[in-house]
Amino acid sequence: MAVGLFEPSDLYPIKGIKLSTTAAGIRYQNRDDLLLISINEGARVAAVFTQNKFCAAPVVLAKEHISKSAPRALLVNSGNANAGTGSLGASNAEKCCQLIADKLSIKKTQVLPFSTGVIGEQLPMQVFEFGVEQLSSHGEEDNWLAAAKCIMTTDTLAKGFSEKIDIDGHSITITGIVKGSGMICPNMATLLSYVATDAAIDDDVLKQMLERATEASFNRITVDSDTSTNDSLVLIATGTSDLAEINSIDSTHGKILYKTIKRIFVNLAKSVIRDAEGASKFVNIEVMHGESKSDCETIAYSVAHSPLVKTALFACDPNWGRILMAVGKSDVDNLDVKKISIKINNLLIVENGEPAKSYTEELGKVEFEKTDLTISVDLNDGSEQYHVWTSDLSHEYVTINADYRS
Amino acid sequence: MAVGLFEPSDLYPIKGIKLSTTAAGIRYQNRDDLLLISINEGARVAAVFTQNKFCAAPVVLAKEHISKSAPRALLVNSGNANAGTGSLGASNAEKCCQLIADKLSIKKTQVLPFSTGVIGEQLPMQVFEFGVEQLSSHGEEDNWLAAAKCIMTTDTLAKGFSEKIDIDGHSITITGIVKGSGMICPNMATLLSYVATDAAIDDDVLKQMLERATEASFNRITVDSDTSTNDSLVLIATGTSDLAEINSIDSTHGKILYKTIKRIFVNLAKSVIRDAEGASKFVNIEVMHGESKSDCETIAYSVAHSPLVKTALFACDPNWGRILMAVGKSDVDNLDVKKISIKINNLLIVENGEPAKSYTEELGKVEFEKTDLTISVDLNDGSEQYHVWTSDLSHEYVTINADYRS
Repeated sequence: MAVGLFEPSDLYPIKGIKLSTTAAGIRYQNRDDLLLISINEGARVAAVFTQNKFCAAPVVLAKEHISKSAPRALLVNSGNANAGTGSLGASNAEKCCQLIADKLSIKKTQVLPFSTGVIGEQLPMQVFEFGVEQLSSHGEEDNWLAAAKCIMTTDTLAKGFSEKIDIDGHSITITGIVKGSGMICPNMATLLSYVATDAAIDDDVLKQMLERATEASFNRITVDSDTSTNDSLVLIATGTSDLAEINSIDSTHGKILYKTIKRIFVNLAKSVIRDAEGASKFVNIEVMHGESKSDCETIAYSVAHSPLVKTALFACDPNWGRILMAVGKSDVDNLDVKKISIKINNLLIVENGEPAKSYTEELGKVEFEKTDLTISVDLNDGSEQYHVWTSDLSHEYVTINADYRS
Repeated sequence: MAVGLFEPSDLYPIKGIKLSTTAAGIRYQNRDDLLLISINEGARVAAVFTQNKFCAAPVVLAKEHISKSAPRALLVNSGNANAGTGSLGASNAEKCCQLIADKLSIKKTQVLPFSTGVIGEQLPMQVFEFGVEQLSSHGEEDNWLAAAKCIMTTDTLAKGFSEKIDIDGHSITITGIVKGSGMICPNMATLLSYVATDAAIDDDVLKQMLERATEASFNRITVDSDTSTNDSLVLIATGTSDLAEINSIDSTHGKILYKTIKRIFVNLAKSVIRDAEGASKFVNIEVMHGESKSDCETIAYSVAHSPLVKTALFACDPNWGRILMAVGKSDVDNLDVKKISIKINNLLIVENGEPAKSYTEELGKVEFEKTDLTISVDLNDGSEQYHVWTSDLSHEYVTINADYRS
């Protein structure tokens, strides 16, 4: 049911990163559900995590571990989120890290754990032990697509993007994968996503690139306004290419690389919306000419989260009054509705707070029937802007979320 | 599909209030859609309106009129909201008031207009003129139930409550009606609701009663987080009983009357949730022992608005991890998850941030299958509390809102 999105046929390997998957049987049958990403010594790793206060045991532990050691292994399971599992969940996450540490002869703090799936159930530790035994210690570099499949839950297809660029005659590769289609309204981080490049990047620059690119990508998407307990995003620079280390995001090399990393992030974030639970539409919501960026953001999310706007989009019904309602209910001071214009794609619907004279229901219908569309809200009151990407609200969304678990 | 709610068999008349309805054919066929409520001279009237910035033309005009004159007539139509209709919509609302003023030989500013229905379409003025002609100038006192039916849109039944109380040997009657089942997340007022009593109440006291009772009732409900453009609530004191005027909300008489008015308001507000679009559950969300009331409110709405919590409720699935997610994503500072306990009805699910040892999936299933349930979140961190009432998110909600208009 993904909207204009296809599974990647292949993803470029990154020298230094090896991926191994196995079918441990944590929840799903007949598919891989446990992933080990091994990282070369000397690689730089930066990560951001969910801001949900009930964050999952693996998130708490991953934050602690990355503050102590340079990560050498990421262990990811699907089917169980190990969230809301209290002190037993915390000690289970530690045990998982220890199993990998023993297997790879590294320190426990060099392992970052990640879990995604049902909240509130304990990890089946025997199954986990069996799974870790099955995993190859070596893994393969050319295994990103299998990894993308292994971490799926309600996702309908594996999502990943990969690019090769040339910097001053040096070939640099960037590859990223992501899972997620529901409980999506990331705050500072999102879902599970792993992106790696073979470029060498200074630690602080890596963090800067991660934060800036996250703000422009994963922090701009919402499926259902629900911020997950497990969102995690990791950016790895293996330093295995022959290009000299990048020491500034504003250097010539830094700019070229950042631009590509950001594009991969944006593509990954958009792919989550295209594969959103029950989605039949990909919707870009732009709010422009606001007094402040935060005003524009509040209005954009008010439209993106409105169940009535989302059901109208699902129905291809040009019921634009609901967009106007969602703009009007926003918690923004001094909104001057008489200045506001609203467009669907290039079709003007509201002009200076009045229904546009050129608008007809027939013209509206044509635009609402498109699967990719842009709702633009022009406040005509300043110079700031914000945009978010979202999906519609369909029967399929209710079916998926009323049935998930059973 | 209403949850534990039945249409009232009768509603007590209020001396001084006369109600007339007719089938003008504004949108619906073969049913009344235009209501005139005539108010006796000398009655006191107070009203609150939506805070949506794109508020409808009749809301703008009603606010203006009530600031100028004591209202003598309320004109209400269903099927068309006259919202998002610009300057033509504004002049149409004025024309409607003029039609009634001419019919009843009163001033235009003594008429308050109200509209509910589709947003973004102009009122069909010829139909309106015909409708106003059809309306009886006299109306009948014993006509509240017909009025409740006349103002319905996606409501599945007419909603109203009525009580007779005795104050110092004087019989006092209070009757109220309400419409609304979607686009429900009132802010300072809600939907369309009209409540009248034959008591005589001082102007300031009436406003106080209206505001306090609204805060305890209509401002505590949400169906879909979408605040309508047309919400309006009117409280009328006709002063036709033989009880002396009430001059203080804290007087003995004032207290007795306010308690009853508040109960009617709460019943009306709850009836909207019981008849919410597609609702199969009535859910009370209580957040207690918080540091501040606003913290408790933020958390209560975060749970009430979560599509994932709402779909789990629809599925009778004790997927309590989603409740925990919704508490954790709340924008509240210093939330100490280790202190939080969560119950469904009397069943303890989370204790001090950990899964309760006594909890089992079977016990959870029993509670989630009930149609009336309470989710309690105990923050164990202060003395403030807040509660909201909400419904679940079902296929029927999507069907109604994908099909409404067509």
